[in-house]
Amino acid sequence: MISDIWSDPRDFKTSLAESARAVEVVMDQLIPVPDGPEARVHEAMRYAILAGGKRLRPFLVLAGSALFGVSQRSALRVATAIELLHTYSLIHDDLPAMDNSDLRRGKPTCHKAFDDATAILAGDALLTLAFEVLADAETHGDPAVRCELVTALAKASGAVGMVGCQMIDILAESDPTLDIGEITRLQRLKTGALIAFSSEAGAILGKAPLDLRRVLVAYAHDIGLAFQIADDLLDTEGTAAETGKSVGRDAVAGKATFVSILGIEGARAQAEALVEQATNHLEVFADKAALLRDCARYIIERKS
Amino acid sequence: MISDIWSDPRDFKTSLAESARAVEVVMDQLIPVPDGPEARVHEAMRYAILAGGKRLRPFLVLAGSALFGVSQRSALRVATAIELLHTYSLIHDDLPAMDNSDLRRGKPTCHKAFDDATAILAGDALLTLAFEVLADAETHGDPAVRCELVTALAKASGAVGMVGCQMIDILAESDPTLDIGEITRLQRLKTGALIAFSSEAGAILGKAPLDLRRVLVAYAHDIGLAFQIADDLLDTEGTAAETGKSVGRDAVAGKATFVSILGIEGARAQAEALVEQATNHLEVFADKAALLRDCARYIIERKS
Repeated sequence: MISDIWSDPRDFKTSLAESARAVEVVMDQLIPVPDGPEARVHEAMRYAILAGGKRLRPFLVLAGSALFGVSQRSALRVATAIELLHTYSLIHDDLPAMDNSDLRRGKPTCHKAFDDATAILAGDALLTLAFEVLADAETHGDPAVRCELVTALAKASGAVGMVGCQMIDILAESDPTLDIGEITRLQRLKTGALIAFSSEAGAILGKAPLDLRRVLVAYAHDIGLAFQIADDLLDTEGTAAETGKSVGRDAVAGKATFVSILGIEGARAQAEALVEQATNHLEVFADKAALLRDCARYIIERKS
Repeated sequence: MISDIWSDPRDFKTSLAESARAVEVVMDQLIPVPDGPEARVHEAMRYAILAGGKRLRPFLVLAGSALFGVSQRSALRVATAIELLHTYSLIHDDLPAMDNSDLRRGKPTCHKAFDDATAILAGDALLTLAFEVLADAETHGDPAVRCELVTALAKASGAVGMVGCQMIDILAESDPTLDIGEITRLQRLKTGALIAFSSEAGAILGKAPLDLRRVLVAYAHDIGLAFQIADDLLDTEGTAAETGKSVGRDAVAGKATFVSILGIEGARAQAEALVEQATNHLEVFADKAALLRDCARYIIERKS
């Protein structure tokens, strides 16, 4: 299935859609259709993971894996683990105690469709499942590689990565005085940590040399920041119908964002510069990295 | 340090206290003293993990590891990972959306001392850190063993283990008609899954043969159930001062428990029978399992 996705590397949108479908098939298999009294937590997990979404992180894993001849099965399983983890973070971030969002991908958020307790547990279970998937022998024949994936994902998503930044993000809501350096550091860690892992995962799976891994991490840092700036622009300029989530929330919250600091034009220019820098990093891969280049551009041109 | 703990295997209480101290030292090293804007999540993690507690699960890991000549460092790291994971489950269970508990180990619960958002994030970060600790090369020289630990802990704590049972437990609050079979299954999974992993971890670390692993799992199932019955008895008969947490909550909630179904004497007799059965399982280890036998008895005689 993956070979089909990557057989025509010039067609980014088709590749993105097909990689999303492939990951959804694996997620569908991993979380059984609810049965028995614990059904509700499975139901909530399935609700959240099968609610659509761009599946950008899985795409990065698959595109990165293609550079190193990684097997389809390995790449798909890691792509799935990241999407499970990303979905957990969305469920918990949306909770009333956190961002209190009612709408996600055009549908009620998990705690709205179920309840807070179920949403907390569904998030916990998805986070746990992500590590279970990575550690499983099906993911890679070499257990040292699997351990490295677990370690890297844990670091990216834990207290010094994604979770730590969600903490800063919440505290920053009441502190509109953050400067551009602080905002950059915050967002680089928050969105960036998981995007960095997604971009690097193929290199870990393919046991790529350190210098090529560094190239992918540098690429990821730039697109991660560009992604966040694009999100801030969508929050300012997008509509709820387009983005599928509540918009204008940052301004209402008086929150410091790239847009509030740089202005709309400044933020757009900054995102453009980052995408150019990101694609420059990929020169060493020549044409083989065409999909990753397209992806960088897509990240700032998307409407949701 | 561990060798000291196990040098006099007849002294259970001293061993329990010393293993608790050893695990606390490792936890203290793992979670740095708060610094920088994400400090708050580290602060909440440290508040929760260093709040005391029996550290029963770490003790089981250390006692089980001693049966198979596992290195002190390996055993301590796995013991620590389990305590991190156990602590995350307490933080999330105590949240207003779940059990809504104000008191834990005689102190305000994490969300009371901080706030709900911080408590959710601290729990998420502890869960993530548990897997990071297991996957790290320091935990065991063989990455296949580390992957097996990650897999086993993920299964024990995920949607078909601990999290699934917390879901059933919440649903059961509004259903006092559960029968003894359903309650047993629920509690065996909820408390039992993590106790089973704690008891088996030493055998995984020591690459013990399957039949000895099964012995430890059988032992764990019995003490896990006995542990829950003892908890129900403490909730009925204990005082908040003794137990360090709110008591009498089950009766107020009209919740089906071992005590509500079997009566106080019936529940006590059942716990006694389980402890005897648990110690019988350990015959194959002869005197070497003395601490595990003492532990089984302690589980139903403790006052908190």
